[in-house]
Amino acid sequence: MKRLLTGELATEAGKKVLVKGWLHKRRDLGALVFVVLRDRDGVVQMVVKDEAEQKKLEGLYPGTVLEVHGTVVAEPRAAGGVEIHDPELVVISPVSDVPPIEIDKAIDHKSENFDTLFEYRALNLRNLSERAIFRVQAAVGRAFREYFDERGFTEIHTPKLLAGATEGGAEVFKTDYFGQVATLAQSPQFYKQMMVGALERVFEVGPVYRAEPSVTTRHMSEYISLDAEVGFVTFDELLTMLSELLNHMVGSAWKEAGEELTLLGATKPKLTKELPRLSMREIHDLYSKATGENTREELDLFPAEERWICEYAAKELGSEAVFVTEWPMRDAKFYHLADDEHPEIAVRADLLFRGIEVVTSSMREHRYDRLVKQLREMAKGDPESDGFKYFVSAFKYGMPPHGGFGMGLERVTQELIGLHNVKEASLFPRDTKRLAP
Amino acid sequence: MKRLLTGELATEAGKKVLVKGWLHKRRDLGALVFVVLRDRDGVVQMVVKDEAEQKKLEGLYPGTVLEVHGTVVAEPRAAGGVEIHDPELVVISPVSDVPPIEIDKAIDHKSENFDTLFEYRALNLRNLSERAIFRVQAAVGRAFREYFDERGFTEIHTPKLLAGATEGGAEVFKTDYFGQVATLAQSPQFYKQMMVGALERVFEVGPVYRAEPSVTTRHMSEYISLDAEVGFVTFDELLTMLSELLNHMVGSAWKEAGEELTLLGATKPKLTKELPRLSMREIHDLYSKATGENTREELDLFPAEERWICEYAAKELGSEAVFVTEWPMRDAKFYHLADDEHPEIAVRADLLFRGIEVVTSSMREHRYDRLVKQLREMAKGDPESDGFKYFVSAFKYGMPPHGGFGMGLERVTQELIGLHNVKEASLFPRDTKRLAP
Repeated sequence: MKRLLTGELATEAGKKVLVKGWLHKRRDLGALVFVVLRDRDGVVQMVVKDEAEQKKLEGLYPGTVLEVHGTVVAEPRAAGGVEIHDPELVVISPVSDVPPIEIDKAIDHKSENFDTLFEYRALNLRNLSERAIFRVQAAVGRAFREYFDERGFTEIHTPKLLAGATEGGAEVFKTDYFGQVATLAQSPQFYKQMMVGALERVFEVGPVYRAEPSVTTRHMSEYISLDAEVGFVTFDELLTMLSELLNHMVGSAWKEAGEELTLLGATKPKLTKELPRLSMREIHDLYSKATGENTREELDLFPAEERWICEYAAKELGSEAVFVTEWPMRDAKFYHLADDEHPEIAVRADLLFRGIEVVTSSMREHRYDRLVKQLREMAKGDPESDGFKYFVSAFKYGMPPHGGFGMGLERVTQELIGLHNVKEASLFPRDTKRLAP
Repeated sequence: MKRLLTGELATEAGKKVLVKGWLHKRRDLGALVFVVLRDRDGVVQMVVKDEAEQKKLEGLYPGTVLEVHGTVVAEPRAAGGVEIHDPELVVISPVSDVPPIEIDKAIDHKSENFDTLFEYRALNLRNLSERAIFRVQAAVGRAFREYFDERGFTEIHTPKLLAGATEGGAEVFKTDYFGQVATLAQSPQFYKQMMVGALERVFEVGPVYRAEPSVTTRHMSEYISLDAEVGFVTFDELLTMLSELLNHMVGSAWKEAGEELTLLGATKPKLTKELPRLSMREIHDLYSKATGENTREELDLFPAEERWICEYAAKELGSEAVFVTEWPMRDAKFYHLADDEHPEIAVRADLLFRGIEVVTSSMREHRYDRLVKQLREMAKGDPESDGFKYFVSAFKYGMPPHGGFGMGLERVTQELIGLHNVKEASLFPRDTKRLAP
């Protein structure tokens, strides 16, 4: 007999079926034992009347793996509209110990519970709402790739073991590499830009590593970076692409993982087709006027301002995501492009979504001479060094105007669902203290 | 005017168009200059007659980025059937130095050329056949995910920074992790198995790290591992899945990247719907009979045997890929399942393809007690240690029968195209000597 999934039972009322899964929950009510069985689809309740069958369950705890032949009976009060009667059980893997956490009850995602949440991660991911987070994440990742696959982009895989540090700074992990020192990539930045010279349009999905000692709700030391780089593009076209991409990711997530998002209590974000663009100056101005707190001289946005402008955009502009443009060049990376008319301004836009920055995007300096100048002046970098020479060489031999962006898969997942901490959106998060499981 | 790609010009004869790309090659023939322009699609030849336009090209070398308005003219002798006449050129990024390699000529992939091939990788990837390899690779990766997306699998991302070594042995990279020692993942093995307990069917595409000092045509210290793990599966079902998967990957590659495969001179492999299965004993026997060399007592296959059996399978069984089953348990990993009736045999199958192992697959021991026993006896591992305790805990609280497999994206790409060395199928390969670019 072919196994059916719990999600396939609704149309099988009256039929004898085979289901397989885990004992998710049991209630012993005198003559009856109710067993909820979980599989990859969902759950179904089984009513165990027969004493010999009940005996098979003696001393067994949630997690026990079962194969069950039984009859599907319509039961409007049950989840899914059916339950299984007269089950014949086969115990595949018995669990003889009380699990350290209750699988059928979600652990409240308060930071004081994080040690429990992550210590027993492999078990708590068996909880329906916990695992739902990662079904949403998978849908988001698929939508990201889909968008680019349909637009002439090539997926690339670039190395994470490097001779130098991409973004500079001391915050890199280092390893002995057959006698050399290797660093772990902080981003695929240089590689994706170099590949524009060969493939014009590329994207990558892969891990990046940040040895920042930051303990915040936004940081992890390993995360999945979704990156794209586009040749022969204008800044305006780049932001239109990003607008389309975010709309596509949201639409796809709700289409492919709608049940999971409902289970998680997520609200579908309002987005305009073209996401609104506000310059940093405009945001400082709006915020200062609204709150009386003067931020007009700041080079960056405060977290409070990021939250405020997202609420403003949602209310006034009909979009829960908003681009922040016109960033100071003083704060830019050496590979950023300065505005031709206002060289103190970088051609860069961060995308804020629901109060937090989820995407950084910019046009890149594609002219060899200027790039080398910016590398020397802004990053104090040596264009002849191992860390930079390959990168600048690609420009010496011809690079077109290009731009790109990067976003953290976990952060996007977090904001779509409305999770408080980015770690909740990582299967096995890594922070300054956490290296296991 | 909207930019057209070179691949879109065939139907535009007689029209004025805008194209953008790189100067790929030039020939100066007295009064005429022929310029081949390259974009992400391919190439088109332009005939530059006008002296003022020719002047713009003075002192410029391949790689120069151009925007060109010109008239499409049918020319049956030209690649693509058209060329561009009367171009008006705008130089976007001039290249004033002779490139260190000739972009329009492929570097012969002999190992003595590898230093040049990889030292100037960002430039040589601009060569049409070189970049074609990675278009094929992208199609293969997409097909891999597609197969699982359609079958109820969830894509996962598991950490590459670990507290312990997955596969044991000294061949791991280590890094200081905020005062702890972290190792770089050799495979997602433990994580994908743990996730079977939560999601039943999972797959992952991500880098893995091997600090093996091996210098062979098969090894790299960083590669992309394509992994899947399947709950409630039999060995027979697992091998059927793998057969379908390989057929799908091959079919998709030829459908999505057929032009590239033709350019690379690749031959579409013959595969049967169900790939043939031969036990190691049978292979030793066939090989020994055919060659007179007795390998019957060996625990593994020799490289020569792997090549021989693939040729045999291609000729006699109609398939260039063949499963090798019935591996000795003596040589197995602790998480492998031993055959119930013949405990000296592991329920494992390696897939050989065109003479080389491209997939390892096996059923896993899902029974807690036996797993702990095998861990202790076969891997001398401590189930209470940080490296193993989370893994075995998932089994203590209920795991179904399951199996899975892993394959290297670069190795599959290599064999599909017929490349000699796996490094040729890596954008920026890493080996004992190579850490840059």
